[in-house]
Parts: sequence; C-alpha cells; structure tokens
Amino acid sequence: MRIVLDAMGSDTCPEPEVLAAVEAARLFGDEIILVGPVDQLEPRLQALGRENHMVRLVNAPDTITMKDKGLALALKAKRKGSKTSMAVGIDLVKEGQADAFVTAGNTGGALATAYYRLGTIPGVERPALTGLFPVRNGYCVVLDIGANPECKPEHLLQFAVMGSVYASKVRGVPQPRIGLVSNGEEAGKGNELVKSAYPLLEASGLNFIGNVEGKELFGGNADVAVTDGFTGNILLKSSEAVAKLITDILKEELLSSLRTKLGAALARPAFGRIKTMMDPAEVGAAPLLGIAGLVFVGHGRSDARALVSAIRTARQAVEVNLLTEIQTAIQERLAALTLTTDSDRNETDHD
Amino acid sequence: MRIVLDAMGSDTCPEPEVLAAVEAARLFGDEIILVGPVDQLEPRLQALGRENHMVRLVNAPDTITMKDKGLALALKAKRKGSKTSMAVGIDLVKEGQADAFVTAGNTGGALATAYYRLGTIPGVERPALTGLFPVRNGYCVVLDIGANPECKPEHLLQFAVMGSVYASKVRGVPQPRIGLVSNGEEAGKGNELVKSAYPLLEASGLNFIGNVEGKELFGGNADVAVTDGFTGNILLKSSEAVAKLITDILKEELLSSLRTKLGAALARPAFGRIKTMMDPAEVGAAPLLGIAGLVFVGHGRSDARALVSAIRTARQAVEVNLLTEIQTAIQERLAALTLTTDSDRNETDHD
Repeated sequence: MRIVLDAMGSDTCPEPEVLAAVEAARLFGDEIILVGPVDQLEPRLQALGRENHMVRLVNAPDTITMKDKGLALALKAKRKGSKTSMAVGIDLVKEGQADAFVTAGNTGGALATAYYRLGTIPGVERPALTGLFPVRNGYCVVLDIGANPECKPEHLLQFAVMGSVYASKVRGVPQPRIGLVSNGEEAGKGNELVKSAYPLLEASGLNFIGNVEGKELFGGNADVAVTDGFTGNILLKSSEAVAKLITDILKEELLSSLRTKLGAALARPAFGRIKTMMDPAEVGAAPLLGIAGLVFVGHGRSDARALVSAIRTARQAVEVNLLTEIQTAIQERLAALTLTTDSDRNETDHD
Repeated sequence: MRIVLDAMGSDTCPEPEVLAAVEAARLFGDEIILVGPVDQLEPRLQALGRENHMVRLVNAPDTITMKDKGLALALKAKRKGSKTSMAVGIDLVKEGQADAFVTAGNTGGALATAYYRLGTIPGVERPALTGLFPVRNGYCVVLDIGANPECKPEHLLQFAVMGSVYASKVRGVPQPRIGLVSNGEEAGKGNELVKSAYPLLEASGLNFIGNVEGKELFGGNADVAVTDGFTGNILLKSSEAVAKLITDILKEELLSSLRTKLGAALARPAFGRIKTMMDPAEVGAAPLLGIAGLVFVGHGRSDARALVSAIRTARQAVEVNLLTEIQTAIQERLAALTLTTDSDRNETDHD
C-alpha cells in the first residue's frame, strides 16, 4: 500500500509532515510518498538521522495556501501542469502510483483539486466533505459539512448511501443508523429540501431513522447524519465554537483563585474525556466522499501524531476497498430506488 | 401596566405560574392577569394565603399542550370562540385590556395563536421566533430560530431591523452589530438566500458586520444574528445539545472517583458561570418579533423564578414601546432601502 502525504498542508508545515511520514512508514511498514518542495524536505528528512528509505520524496514546488481562493485557487487546482503539492499528490493517485492522498491543508483547495483531477464516482453528482463529530459514546459521520451550500434531494440520498458505507466499512458500525438533520424530529418537519429528501431516504433501503435534531445527533442516536453543505458547515462550526466557549470559560474560572486551582489539580483526571473528544488527532482526517479516488483532509492544527492518525484512517479505507464499496452501493441503492418508484407509479396508474 | 400570564404553559403548570403571578405583582406593583381554568387556579391562589388582589384570574378552560400540532393546533389557535389560555390571553392584548402576553407553553402554539389573532406589524411579512444565545461576555439576539423554515431575503432584512431594535431598546446595546449567519465569514460565502440577503443588509443603514460563523457568534462579536428559521433552529438545538453533552460528561467524570469528587467540591465556585449561562431563568423569555402585539415565550422548564424573569422582560418591552419602535424602524429602513434601490436603478438607467 502506498499513501501520499501532502508535505505542505498543516499550519506548521512541513515539520509535522516529515515526522509523520517517517513515523507512519515505520509503524505500518509501507511506503509513504511525501509531496512538496524537495529542497525543503530533503534536509529535514536527513536531519532525522535515520534510515528513511520507506519515505519517498516527490517534488512539487508550488503550494495551495489558506489564502488561495476563487479563480486563483481554481486554476491551481485544475491546470494540467499544476505543481502544487495537492495537484502532484492527487495525480499520483489518479495514475495508480498511490492508493490514497492525505493532506492537512486548505479544505476547499483539496476539494477543488480532487474534483477537477479525479472527478466523481459514477452515480454521485456531488462529492461531500465528511466530518466525524464527537458525540455521546462515539462519533457521528456528518455529511456534507461544506462542499455544497445548495443541494438537491437526490444529493442527500447519495450522501446517505456514501455515509452508510463509510460508517459500516471504515468505522465498523454494522447497520448504520441514518438521520436527516432537521428542525424537528417528526416527519414533515423541515425546509423544502428536507421534506423532499425524506421519502427518498425512506424508500432507500438504508437504516433510515428519520429526522434528527441536536439532541439525537450529539446524544449518539445516529451513526450518520445527512445534511446540505450550508447547514452542515454551520452545525460543525457552531458546535466547535460552543465547545470552545464552555471549555475556555471553565479554564478561566478554574484559574481564577487558589481554591479553584487546587480543585482543578485534584479533578484533573476528570477533564481527560472532554480533552480527548476535542482532540483533532482522535479523528485524524475526514474523507471527501464521492470523489473517484481516496482523499482525506485533516485539521490544519494537525501535529505529527494527528497526521499519523490521518494516514491510519486512509489505510483503513484502502484496506476495505472503500471506493468499490461506495460505487457498488450507489448503483444498488439507486437501482432499487428506481424500481420502487416505478412500481409505485404503476400502482398509481392502475388506480 | 398589565401583563397576562398563561397559567397553563410550563411543564409543571400551573403551580409555578400561580407563584410567579403573586411574586411579580408584589415585585412590580402592577396587576398580573393569570389566564387558565379558574377552578384550578382559585384554590391554589388562596392557598398561598396572602392578599392577592393584584392577581386577576380570567377563565380559560381549554389548553394548548405540547401534543397539539397540525390542524388541531391551528383550530385551537384560530377559532373565534377558542377558550385556550393562549387564545383568551392574547385576545386580552388584542382588545387593549393588557399590554403583553407571557407563556412558557408550546412555542408553535403561541406563534400560531398570536399570528392568527394579532397579525403582523405593517411591513413585516413573517413574525420571527427570537432567541437570546449566551455568548462570550453576554447574549446574542438570534432570529429566526424556528418560525419560518423557508425565508426570502426580504424576510432576513426585516428580521435584522427587528432584532436591531430589540437589542438596542430592550437589551440596551447602543449600535447593535448585525451578523448574517453563513458558512464562511467572507462576503460571497453562503447559500442562495444568504447571498441575496447580504446586499440588502449592506444597504439597510443598519450596523451590518457581514457574515458570521460560530466563532464570531459565540465569541460575542455580533449583538444580533440573522438567519432563516430552519438554520436558526438547528443552530439553537445543536448548541444546546453540545453544551449539555460537555457538562453531562464533565459531571459524570467528576463523580467517578473520590479524588475528582474532592476536586470538584473545591473547584465548585468555578462552575457558576457555566451554570448561569445555561439557566433559562437568566433569559426569561424570547419575544415573537413582528407580531402586532407583545408576546413572549419562556422555556417549558421554567420555574416561578424564570417566569418572573420572563414577566420582567415583557415589562421592559412595554416600557420602551417596543411595538411602536419596531413599526417606525421597519417603515424608515424600508423607505430608505426603496430610495437607495430606486437611485441605483436610475443610475443604471443613465449608463
């Protein structure tokens, strides 16, 4: 197995990437392809002073940064001769020289580069940014969290199929419970998009549990939550912001007096679970589901440990043949749905 | 000033309501009109064993419960002779016999009853459920949090005008900063609704600060955040759920060993601020802005203290003449906007 790691992704790149490449190669015993400006990477790799023959460097002098957007970004992503680390790395996947691409860089950049260079799986109209939300007793796969601010009902159905495959094959959930994010649990609640997507999900043959609100989602009642990229992004950012607000205030208050400082020191073991929940290294990386190639995006704040965890996630996806599984599921579900809809129509015709 | 209190609103009604009515009448020295089944209220009021001549009972034998929905609810809300405590109470406001209506009952029921019986302020097409979100260093007025799952750009503009008046007149914020909830801070980010609402808000003359994400909203950078009722509801429910998840886990972990229990006991003063932030009594009640009458909805979990706080909020709105202020602001802003748009159009014509 060969995983490509974007050397120029994380906020403090390329140090964490070089470390992670060496560590992952040692840990998994497979080749890691590190893509970026070789003149910067070579000395850093050598400075680690070990035998690093399992890390292969591929040169990519250009970089997509957090500042790139709009047309400039689209060009860097799309251009045939583009030499950004993302374009070069993703091309390696496209040419079959690598099995998956991992980056901690600009998410929009990764999405655009992957979309233009790899395209989507047949039957998938839109790729989805997929997040793993820490919830009670585990994680919930949430998609789309930002790729598509406007969605059609069929897109949500495709997201549900892909999320279900991801949860079962990569996360090991037997019969993933699929929830539709809405402003009320009852069927019939929702905006026009949700109301139109509901019957599609109901007829999909997936383990659809209906609408879910924050209570069900963060309470751990759904394994997959489906939503449009606008709502999903707001869900992601607001839940991160609320978690940060609460933990920040708590820290301030615990440091505000000698008594509370002492209490905090004693109670320290109790804070571990929250800290783990909010640690990007726990999740590693989120997949761009629907892209015709395995692409994973980690948090910009990733350190070497988080990047190794991201590579581990990518390896799992390769091992279970995620792409083929999604492709098969999409075809089966869509075929089943077409049949159901046709027979419904025939019954109606007979009336 | 006369405030109507729905006696059949809260989860444990009518006890908290009877207590709150007596307490508010004593505290504010004004008449409180308690509406509900008099046969249930009379003995409870007498049992309090005080001179309660400042609490007037008005009979309403029927109730809107949390179970009422759809057509049944619409009928209870709309019917001319409806004897629900909400219908009778809101009719008192309509007939000028009271200045504001306060309930801790079914929000959808209150909205429907208020909408059918009072209508909206001229120039306001849709009333908005308005929430006060606890954020860093205060509160953010968020609307709509659930009345209108589908909105037009003009609705968001009207929400912004109403939210701005509410923040300045009732919450005492001099030049309320208005944010538009979106999936990115930059102008141009958003779904179609947000992209169309942005220029309207920019031209409104309000203190519009652009798009806001969770970071800005919960970081306290906006005094008012405007959004459609679908997104706003998900924002509300998910932030509540995340806050609950974190505090629940923290409680469990703090109680998990003797050491952490001791630590928690010592650190106790540090938990007060979070507890206060999550206490519904702190906010009291949220207004239904845009309704042609003052209607406030408190949390179903309200106790007597929370209901007194809700009545206090309603009194503030009466004192500052909130309805007239909103009506004036809507007319001024819309007139200004029409002029701007007209002159824009003329300039375009000349080109």
